[in-house]
Amino acid sequence: MTSGVVTLTTDFGLRDSFVGAMKGVLLSRCPSLQIVDLCHEVPPQDVLAGALRLAAAAPFYPPGTVHVAVVDPGVGSTRRPIAIQAAGQVFVGPDNGVLSLAAHRAAAGWQAVVLDSPELWLPEVSHTFHGRDVFAPTAAYLACGGALAEVGNDIDDVVEIALPRVQREGDGLRGAVIDVDHFGNLITNIQRVDLGDRVVQTVSLGGATIEKLSSFYDPAEPLVAVISSEGRLEVAVPGGNAALELGLAVGAVVDIDLRPLPCV
Amino acid sequence: MTSGVVTLTTDFGLRDSFVGAMKGVLLSRCPSLQIVDLCHEVPPQDVLAGALRLAAAAPFYPPGTVHVAVVDPGVGSTRRPIAIQAAGQVFVGPDNGVLSLAAHRAAAGWQAVVLDSPELWLPEVSHTFHGRDVFAPTAAYLACGGALAEVGNDIDDVVEIALPRVQREGDGLRGAVIDVDHFGNLITNIQRVDLGDRVVQTVSLGGATIEKLSSFYDPAEPLVAVISSEGRLEVAVPGGNAALELGLAVGAVVDIDLRPLPCV
Amino acid sequence: MTSGVVTLTTDFGLRDSFVGAMKGVLLSRCPSLQIVDLCHEVPPQDVLAGALRLAAAAPFYPPGTVHVAVVDPGVGSTRRPIAIQAAGQVFVGPDNGVLSLAAHRAAAGWQAVVLDSPELWLPEVSHTFHGRDVFAPTAAYLACGGALAEVGNDIDDVVEIALPRVQREGDGLRGAVIDVDHFGNLITNIQRVDLGDRVVQTVSLGGATIEKLSSFYDPAEPLVAVISSEGRLEVAVPGGNAALELGLAVGAVVDIDLRPLPCV
Repeated sequence: MTSGVVTLTTDFGLRDSFVGAMKGVLLSRCPSLQIVDLCHEVPPQDVLAGALRLAAAAPFYPPGTVHVAVVDPGVGSTRRPIAIQAAGQVFVGPDNGVLSLAAHRAAAGWQAVVLDSPELWLPEVSHTFHGRDVFAPTAAYLACGGALAEVGNDIDDVVEIALPRVQREGDGLRGAVIDVDHFGNLITNIQRVDLGDRVVQTVSLGGATIEKLSSFYDPAEPLVAVISSEGRLEVAVPGGNAALELGLAVGAVVDIDLRPLPCV
Repeated sequence: MTSGVVTLTTDFGLRDSFVGAMKGVLLSRCPSLQIVDLCHEVPPQDVLAGALRLAAAAPFYPPGTVHVAVVDPGVGSTRRPIAIQAAGQVFVGPDNGVLSLAAHRAAAGWQAVVLDSPELWLPEVSHTFHGRDVFAPTAAYLACGGALAEVGNDIDDVVEIALPRVQREGDGLRGAVIDVDHFGNLITNIQRVDLGDRVVQTVSLGGATIEKLSSFYDPAEPLVAVISSEGRLEVAVPGGNAALELGLAVGAVVDIDLRPLPCV
Repeated sequence: MTSGVVTLTTDFGLRDSFVGAMKGVLLSRCPSLQIVDLCHEVPPQDVLAGALRLAAAAPFYPPGTVHVAVVDPGVGSTRRPIAIQAAGQVFVGPDNGVLSLAAHRAAAGWQAVVLDSPELWLPEVSHTFHGRDVFAPTAAYLACGGALAEVGNDIDDVVEIALPRVQREGDGLRGAVIDVDHFGNLITNIQRVDLGDRVVQTVSLGGATIEKLSSFYDPAEPLVAVISSEGRLEVAVPGGNAALELGLAVGAVVDIDLRPLPCV
């Protein structure tokens, strides 16, 4: 079952013709589909960043959506082109982990295939642009109703990407900034579930300390820690840019002190 | 009556998954709609800039179009989520003025509601991303044929944004730069109608003086003043970047000397 | 015959309302069409760059697609608005060469008209925004099934853009960088066909020398020369940015030494 929707997540940017060429192939192969630009400004060749963006948006799409993700520094090498079916959606792209967070979030179990039906691809496949030559025609085939089994053979050794793990240290948690968004907000690997039944006492990073969790970007505070719309601990300067003002980037350490919930 | 078209105007940029998540919600809730990216590069949290962009583009859309605008520094605070119906189109977003220029331009009268039907929203509403959780599902409901009265109750105290007023001083007008476009052209608050039946003698700003209005970006001139495609006085360096070359930004003062039309 | 698809290639960027206004006109005039953003980040007023992007993507679109390209420094001057039909697609835009590479690639022969049916345009045509006022309504008319002969009268003196020619010098070729992509890869005017039946011995540019052609962005090499997905010689730093690391830009000279294919 297909929704007729194909989303595109790439690190191609919007300056060149790469995205435009992929859209042409999609529409030539399946004229009825609807193309949705999910994100094309993934930092160049940053597979983790691409994986995070796809995982954050994909759950909101209809069943039957085909998601194409091309952050593909290994294009033309021996890395495999794959497709993964999970929770009623399909993910198409290189086997370097860029699909794995979304597929993993979507379902405990998934079905993966290596794309090995070149008769579905463009007649001439370049060594440097599989997004256009392999992934777009495959996605169009699936979005027009093709079955996963027709585009490739099963595999069970998909490359998975690992987020850094949150460490428990005494009464606290140590995590890391894993992404910086357009507003300069610092997104961490610490999730709401990591807090368990305890209360945040302080959040410390880059020499700054925040004394509580806020529920929104409170303009009365110079620096806030909130649980983001993705369920992650996020640090923001309301009306400003936390990454610039704290001088922090992906990889920065974040420490949280917790205390038990007060007795009722 | 709906056109099935939903436009998106945000300050989310295109680096993150925010826009992609909103599109997923829209298509999940109303698969037949057509999503149009109006602008996602509104400067972060610049409500006036967002209001100007929406007001400039909305009049060209079909009746029944639903325009979503999310420039929303107050998300999660007490600012209200609203929808406004004006001239056959609907505008959905925060009640901070971002919708008001477009709605005002579209019609002398408008009908506004506060969004208070949470059963139409996502089941779980975050404190930081009402674009995805409140505005997108509401827009989808309206774009699929829902009525304004179903999404909220009438209000008559919508927040309106004010452009700086043009001042008349003797034979002249004093205005201000209210926007700088992608080409570095300086857009002012002075409109064609402000000139009345008189002729521009000089336009002065940032130490530069322009001796006449040009009808286009005349490459023979180092600096031109034209009436923009929006009907506003605009100053440009043909083939160059006026904002950079004059060192001017939003807020810069612009003086115009006028003289009566010559007798015929 | 129309595919109902209209693509947009502009130098308008995504910060302003220009693209949004054009899309509104398109949908108002032909509600059933599908709008595809091909590229809006053409460097401002860089006609050659726009022509290259359109030519690279257009061949992948279905027959009957209407491509609008607006890189238009001469808007409002005497430059003509035109449309060109070539290989079953239609190209709409200013007569400054921006359409010519795509139309030329698409077909040895083409049919061109000057747009001279103002009754198809917006009622009021500005001097500075023909993308919205002339090209969008014309494209909508064609995408909804209108014929080329209805939008204008035949012309045979379309402005064509010329790429710098590759020079043959003894056993070598001398070319130039004609584009730099989002990844910093340096795209040259040297095409696969220019190599004939000979083998690349060295590629020299900006003081660097590369000893062979690679088939992909080999991460074991500090600098590679590959044949791009467009069939052009391209120089890249795998995982890095060749333009920044070599300090090169459009116009840089590239020298290739060739030797005959070894006897078998």
